[in-house]
Amino acid sequence: MRNDILAELFDFQRDTEALAQIAGRLGWDQETVMPSGAAGQRGDEMAAIEGVLHARRTDSRLGDWLSALEGADLEPVAASKLRLIRREYARASKVPARLAAEIARVTSMAQGKWAAARAADDFAAFVPVLSEVLRLKREEGAALAAGGDVYDAMLDDYEPGMKAAELEAMFAEMRPRLVALRAAVLEKPAPAALSGTFPEAAQMALTRKLAEVFGYDFSRGRIDKAVHPFSSGSGSDVRITTRTSEDDPFNCFYSTIHEVGHACYEQGIAPDYALTPLGRGVSMGVHESQSRIYENQLGRSEAFTGWLYSEMQTVFGDIGVESARAFYAAVNRVQKDFIRTEADELQYNLHIMLRFDLERALVSGDLAVPDLEAAWNDRFKADFGYAVPRAALGCLQDVHWSVGLFGYFPTYSLGNVYAGCLHEKLRAEVPELDAQLAVADTSAATDWLRGAVQRHGALMTPREVITQACGTAPTAAPLLDYIEDKFSALYDL
Amino acid sequence: MRNDILAELFDFQRDTEALAQIAGRLGWDQETVMPSGAAGQRGDEMAAIEGVLHARRTDSRLGDWLSALEGADLEPVAASKLRLIRREYARASKVPARLAAEIARVTSMAQGKWAAARAADDFAAFVPVLSEVLRLKREEGAALAAGGDVYDAMLDDYEPGMKAAELEAMFAEMRPRLVALRAAVLEKPAPAALSGTFPEAAQMALTRKLAEVFGYDFSRGRIDKAVHPFSSGSGSDVRITTRTSEDDPFNCFYSTIHEVGHACYEQGIAPDYALTPLGRGVSMGVHESQSRIYENQLGRSEAFTGWLYSEMQTVFGDIGVESARAFYAAVNRVQKDFIRTEADELQYNLHIMLRFDLERALVSGDLAVPDLEAAWNDRFKADFGYAVPRAALGCLQDVHWSVGLFGYFPTYSLGNVYAGCLHEKLRAEVPELDAQLAVADTSAATDWLRGAVQRHGALMTPREVITQACGTAPTAAPLLDYIEDKFSALYDL
Repeated sequence: MRNDILAELFDFQRDTEALAQIAGRLGWDQETVMPSGAAGQRGDEMAAIEGVLHARRTDSRLGDWLSALEGADLEPVAASKLRLIRREYARASKVPARLAAEIARVTSMAQGKWAAARAADDFAAFVPVLSEVLRLKREEGAALAAGGDVYDAMLDDYEPGMKAAELEAMFAEMRPRLVALRAAVLEKPAPAALSGTFPEAAQMALTRKLAEVFGYDFSRGRIDKAVHPFSSGSGSDVRITTRTSEDDPFNCFYSTIHEVGHACYEQGIAPDYALTPLGRGVSMGVHESQSRIYENQLGRSEAFTGWLYSEMQTVFGDIGVESARAFYAAVNRVQKDFIRTEADELQYNLHIMLRFDLERALVSGDLAVPDLEAAWNDRFKADFGYAVPRAALGCLQDVHWSVGLFGYFPTYSLGNVYAGCLHEKLRAEVPELDAQLAVADTSAATDWLRGAVQRHGALMTPREVITQACGTAPTAAPLLDYIEDKFSALYDL
Repeated sequence: MRNDILAELFDFQRDTEALAQIAGRLGWDQETVMPSGAAGQRGDEMAAIEGVLHARRTDSRLGDWLSALEGADLEPVAASKLRLIRREYARASKVPARLAAEIARVTSMAQGKWAAARAADDFAAFVPVLSEVLRLKREEGAALAAGGDVYDAMLDDYEPGMKAAELEAMFAEMRPRLVALRAAVLEKPAPAALSGTFPEAAQMALTRKLAEVFGYDFSRGRIDKAVHPFSSGSGSDVRITTRTSEDDPFNCFYSTIHEVGHACYEQGIAPDYALTPLGRGVSMGVHESQSRIYENQLGRSEAFTGWLYSEMQTVFGDIGVESARAFYAAVNRVQKDFIRTEADELQYNLHIMLRFDLERALVSGDLAVPDLEAAWNDRFKADFGYAVPRAALGCLQDVHWSVGLFGYFPTYSLGNVYAGCLHEKLRAEVPELDAQLAVADTSAATDWLRGAVQRHGALMTPREVITQACGTAPTAAPLLDYIEDKFSALYDL
């Protein structure tokens, strides 16, 4: 009897997962191959499939099945699937349909207003719409928190089980060490950047080679160009995008390696989990740990950049740097810059801490939306040591808040912290790693990551998967030690 | 009250139409950009969205709304939408869910068996699976016919309102004239074919130019390569595919013009009808009339091929024919061949009549499946004058029957007949047509077709739309006269 109910529930969930994959594929289509004139109709199509998904996620049969299975004694994989279905149903049921629809409507409109405000460098124009998004997301957060902390409830959407207090302690450890290191580095002369010509077609050919080097399976994916690099899909259809800029080939190459990290996580999940709640990365933080370790600890290592240096000379001829060591310094150049997505490993987490503190203050009401720009600029000056010249380079740079993503930013830093822990363990497990990276052999590293992290999908909690992989609970220490060692050596501190 | 019900029904239908567009887009994705390893998962995704569509099309609320609107006095456009929703609901309700699922399962398996049998040239291997498909489709046809003619019920799926008896009379008029003309033409020496080198990239560049020449709107569509040319989607996202063969550029160019005809029909429908039952071509026959008139009466005309001749010389250099007249003859070359999809205008309809008679005999039970190959070969010899050497070039050449498409083939000839009628009227409306085609100006022709046929979508019945466009009911006479005139002149009969 219970087995029948379980089978019925899992069949229903399987179709929901398949429909979610379809919605994701439509998103990919929209960013890569969709004709420009199809945007209006596509909005209706997306609304229709999102409507189907919402109806399934709040279907009263789910509630009946879940009640009937209360207290059932299941084997661990089935128990984990049931736990995730229960979690998603509880979440969906707590948010009134009226509020969900209102959030969808307002955030879809707000993204356009944000883009216009950014283009006009006009924070005041963005204040009313951000206020409205914030009001709705606080209402949703309160419904989800059910008396608990609203920001924690938001965070839980992206990093199940994580609490703001834990992040606060982690960032308190990170901030002074990173600020001090940043100050010391920026007093030193900047290393030379690349110069030369980097034709688009050659960049795309090398970017495909890089994807292969890092183990991306092209038989279950593809690479296209898009305005923003992203990875999309799960199971056996995981596609990535990249972009090219004729004078900045690193943008293309490191975007690709980053997205390959995300994609390899999805491709590396046990095939049995496909189209079940286990068949996706377990959290944004663990997802980012994979993209970051591929991009940074592996891709920006001295060993790997040695290989990339000779590869780029072969493809592009003279690239304006005279040695592998100078190339390594160019890859890891620390600059006075304002944009999070272009930040180096040292400054990146300072960007996140700023956003974390400001968005918590917005959610709690301690910071009023009209005061955001001043608060941003003050904090930026304090942590980065130089001033934001205009809103487009400051509080208007990210799309996230306009589309209602509060509680999302800290998962980027969490990903870096997890990557730091995984990297420490990986070095212990694969002592010959640098010798392999020097000849572009990532197989030992990516095999280890697949076995330790990727194959589990969402079977365990985020904390469990990192703890099991590393043998200890995650802390910021390995990341901080790694960054200090790397940049002290690079800048002769 | 009734207005509320109507609004609710139309909203529901709009989402169904949007979901059907999504399913179509997934089909496009599968044939063009999908990674090869994603096929298995895609099957689950397609099944999930088809399940959603089936549930919506048989949703009991539809029955309630339609009952409540019985006898309602509506303005014509709303009345037409309601008529089509009623028709689709009645059809879906007549077929038991068990049978629909069984047909989906068996035809999906049968397509692979057909491909294997064709590759092995082994009709006997195909007999069991074709028998099973036929059994299920007859059961479905009987359910749809509800006491009426089973084949007519099948036909009605693709060409609403059409009856086998009407087609029989039409084909009885066509067959002797086409057989006699074919015999006369094949006694004459064959014109020279093209020779030369036709690089793929240059073919694709010219194929895009041809699409533009025929009015395809790239802002609401795109062209990709696929194994089989097709057009997909409605409204503002109508994509086509083509294929290239280095020694046969006509295959690419005329496939493109054909699919552009289909696509321009969808793109030409009144924008107000998008995502309603009116926002699609009204029938397979009318659809084919547009692809055929673009491809044949316009694209293979002496006037247009004159332009194409000089265009191809510019692109490819020496193409092995010495004059525009010889090029026109090469485009319209009649050959002893066996494959329907590669047939010239003269022989094409003979292929269809053969299939029409054989599939009616299969459905009625007059022809047993094991006897199909012999019946095919006898009839082919009688109509074409030469013998089928093997099953892959005979009764195993088309995928249609394996996927359950009975009653579909005759719509191809109906399209040709409709194209003949439209062409006669078009010549009267645009007397300067040849002068325009000679400079690749199709605007008067395609504007007329858009206004007379395309913009109406599914507002009227197929017969009504052709009758209104031409001023008279459709008959085979204009097509037959056109073919006889064209090939008599080409072959000096």
